[in-house]
Amino acid sequence: MPSHDIAIIGLGVMGENLALNFERNGHSVCGFDLDENKRASFARRTEGKRAVTAGSLAELAGQLKLPRRILVMVPAGNAIDAVLADLRPLLAPGDVVIDGGNTLFTDTQRRMLALQGSGILYVGTGVSGGEEGALRGPALMPGGDAQAWPLIRPLLQSIAAKADDGQPCCEWMGPGGAGHFVKMVHNGIEYADMQTICEAYWLMRELLGMTPAEMSAVFAEWNRGELGSYLIAITADILARIDDESGLPLVDLILDTAEQKGTGKWASQAALDLGVTAPTIADAVFARTVSAVKEERIIAAQVLTGPAVRAAGERAAVVEQIRRALLAAKVCAYAQGFALLQAGDREHQWSLSLGSIASVWRAGCIIRARLLEDIRSAYAGDDVPANLLVAPHFAALMAGCQQDLREVVAEAARNGVAVPAFMSALSYYDGYRSARLPANLLQAQRDYFGAHKYQRIDRAGKFHTHWMA
Amino acid sequence: MPSHDIAIIGLGVMGENLALNFERNGHSVCGFDLDENKRASFARRTEGKRAVTAGSLAELAGQLKLPRRILVMVPAGNAIDAVLADLRPLLAPGDVVIDGGNTLFTDTQRRMLALQGSGILYVGTGVSGGEEGALRGPALMPGGDAQAWPLIRPLLQSIAAKADDGQPCCEWMGPGGAGHFVKMVHNGIEYADMQTICEAYWLMRELLGMTPAEMSAVFAEWNRGELGSYLIAITADILARIDDESGLPLVDLILDTAEQKGTGKWASQAALDLGVTAPTIADAVFARTVSAVKEERIIAAQVLTGPAVRAAGERAAVVEQIRRALLAAKVCAYAQGFALLQAGDREHQWSLSLGSIASVWRAGCIIRARLLEDIRSAYAGDDVPANLLVAPHFAALMAGCQQDLREVVAEAARNGVAVPAFMSALSYYDGYRSARLPANLLQAQRDYFGAHKYQRIDRAGKFHTHWMA
Repeated sequence: MPSHDIAIIGLGVMGENLALNFERNGHSVCGFDLDENKRASFARRTEGKRAVTAGSLAELAGQLKLPRRILVMVPAGNAIDAVLADLRPLLAPGDVVIDGGNTLFTDTQRRMLALQGSGILYVGTGVSGGEEGALRGPALMPGGDAQAWPLIRPLLQSIAAKADDGQPCCEWMGPGGAGHFVKMVHNGIEYADMQTICEAYWLMRELLGMTPAEMSAVFAEWNRGELGSYLIAITADILARIDDESGLPLVDLILDTAEQKGTGKWASQAALDLGVTAPTIADAVFARTVSAVKEERIIAAQVLTGPAVRAAGERAAVVEQIRRALLAAKVCAYAQGFALLQAGDREHQWSLSLGSIASVWRAGCIIRARLLEDIRSAYAGDDVPANLLVAPHFAALMAGCQQDLREVVAEAARNGVAVPAFMSALSYYDGYRSARLPANLLQAQRDYFGAHKYQRIDRAGKFHTHWMA
Repeated sequence: MPSHDIAIIGLGVMGENLALNFERNGHSVCGFDLDENKRASFARRTEGKRAVTAGSLAELAGQLKLPRRILVMVPAGNAIDAVLADLRPLLAPGDVVIDGGNTLFTDTQRRMLALQGSGILYVGTGVSGGEEGALRGPALMPGGDAQAWPLIRPLLQSIAAKADDGQPCCEWMGPGGAGHFVKMVHNGIEYADMQTICEAYWLMRELLGMTPAEMSAVFAEWNRGELGSYLIAITADILARIDDESGLPLVDLILDTAEQKGTGKWASQAALDLGVTAPTIADAVFARTVSAVKEERIIAAQVLTGPAVRAAGERAAVVEQIRRALLAAKVCAYAQGFALLQAGDREHQWSLSLGSIASVWRAGCIIRARLLEDIRSAYAGDDVPANLLVAPHFAALMAGCQQDLREVVAEAARNGVAVPAFMSALSYYDGYRSARLPANLLQAQRDYFGAHKYQRIDRAGKFHTHWMA
């Protein structure tokens, strides 16, 4: 009986939780995984619910209402190509296949191209929110074949998180790889958000000697104000956590070598390809890579000289300065992310709506934050600002906290505390607001050794100078 | 009569100058270009010399001693594939084709693979030194089919620059794309070198109000000391140059929008791919991209708040501080570049010799610098340091100037002067010498929202915590 609304292929935690979310919202679900154990676990978890576990892809295809709606939740890469190859002969024109993995947007574009002429409608969707989000309401960023949108919209919007105004955090992003591109930028911002929070934590620890419990209280307090966000909230939780066995703060027992799955790297590489200035996103990736060489760092710490840490000012004042610096750095990171979205849009002609993207990110996803409502407003009108920083709300916000970012960076520099994301956020701000930069000298150097020519400020054209006397 | 030693395909400035260099060093040259005008110009410039201009590739192939040695100097990309396709039927097993363009190393690897079984020996070589270097003696970084090396070594080493100890700046880098990879890293360091010099210039101008003539004298002075290098020398020349028409310093009339050809971008992307921390190279690329949006910056300058520039200290003292900061930043940029070489070597198993690379970079190339002799020494022994920074000479050097980098970064931050490369060099230094970094919190965040697990400092294994209360 072809009676089910949607199929999920890949019953890992994300796939299973999304399935339960669909079911809770009134949709009947058919699940499949190559792994028999996962099928069995899914069958147990969905007992008594509107759900069935298929024993094969063919059985799955036979269980679905037409046109079929199939969400693929397998690891990004070859696994998706394998599923698509097996699935294709079982599908009919008009069926919709949705890749919900963290897929590189160019792979999504390649797969759409390969399906051209088959009548199968292909969608690549960003899914953010982690396991909890998948179950309770993720942010969804679908893009691809526009014909698919009316067929999947009710399903996807029903399971998505809802913003405070009731809007579902799921909108159509655009054609081609638009959905996965937007998710990639989301993750780039996430990397920067996490790194700047880590730097704020580290400054309080190194300059003020604060305990995890004290810092947890600070982050909880910050979460009630303009920094309010999921990542600040979980940081407060993490810092409060006591290790059951030792009775020590758990955060102090965790090894400081960060891992990564590659989406921050992709965002940085895409920024480089598109000529977008996104140093805070890239430096957040590099902060992870330097953390990964822990053994080298232990040796270097004994060999390389640094300053003695000097006494910081009055604690409450310094904490407030760090808070404002974090806010300024966060705005700079978002500005870079949105500039990357704009550049991707120009390159690929997706007609992205920056306001709609900010709207979708307001709830469900990892970077959800109070700030996103203001970003949505900044991009709501027809007059799109050239950069988030010059939108009136954010220019005013930066006016209020840019001096704090300066003071914190200067203190960190003088005290030997590494704050790469704070520093590159400040560089970004000061570079962007400089009508003049020293690139005139750089162009002269390029012309000197490579005859690459330069432009002048007093007349049009390209010029070459024979520099050598 | 097959009597010529080497052919050059592509008679642009670089190809023509390399041809004249070969000829001056006793080799007879056959030149070819698709463009009739370039052929005519080449014929004129080589009149009376041991050189001939071929009218076609077939004619060129017939002019060469066996095995043929052919250097291709056409723009990187499709043009090289086109030349190879036309050339292949004209060649015999044992002939050597050398790509001397700024080719992405993976393209060189792809082309080698395509030639496998043909008996044609393929070499990708980095060529650095610009037009002047090509004519008077470039640095050459060949890699590829090792069988080709004995056949081309006398030719290439004869035209290469010579270091102070008489060594030619041309050594075999390794198999596959090793030569072009090394050149890519060279250019990444070049980007960072140029940007840090620009920042030093900008600080003297913005904080001290120095004139181009005054700064030219400073750079000329710096060039006599440990900063001595080609890029410092040409900066002194550039700052001294007066515009013929207006009588003003020419540097002040050059538009501050930097362009790029992509090799710095490749180096940054490769660092991201290989998990190497190279923020100063990436930030040098981003400094160019932000300079490119000049019109946005002019508007932003009116909208975004910054501090009033405060009086700097005594000029000579501040200039000396900037000099030491520049030296520290330069060492950090080289450390990143050599770490990238090491990582590329690990990934591709090229058996690169870091000492040999430093040796080759001592003369001829754009980043030639006094410092490279010390880098060569640092890598000369069997005990390769994990990072250039911890090599005793450089650890001591950094001990002497790290405090200046801190003071300069702090002053720049407080005065609103954008110094992204200085800042990321300091972040790199402080991150690398930190036995502990805040990545423990980052790992906890990843485990909280994504169940990605973390390691502990007190016992082995991977752990997951149910963080929510």
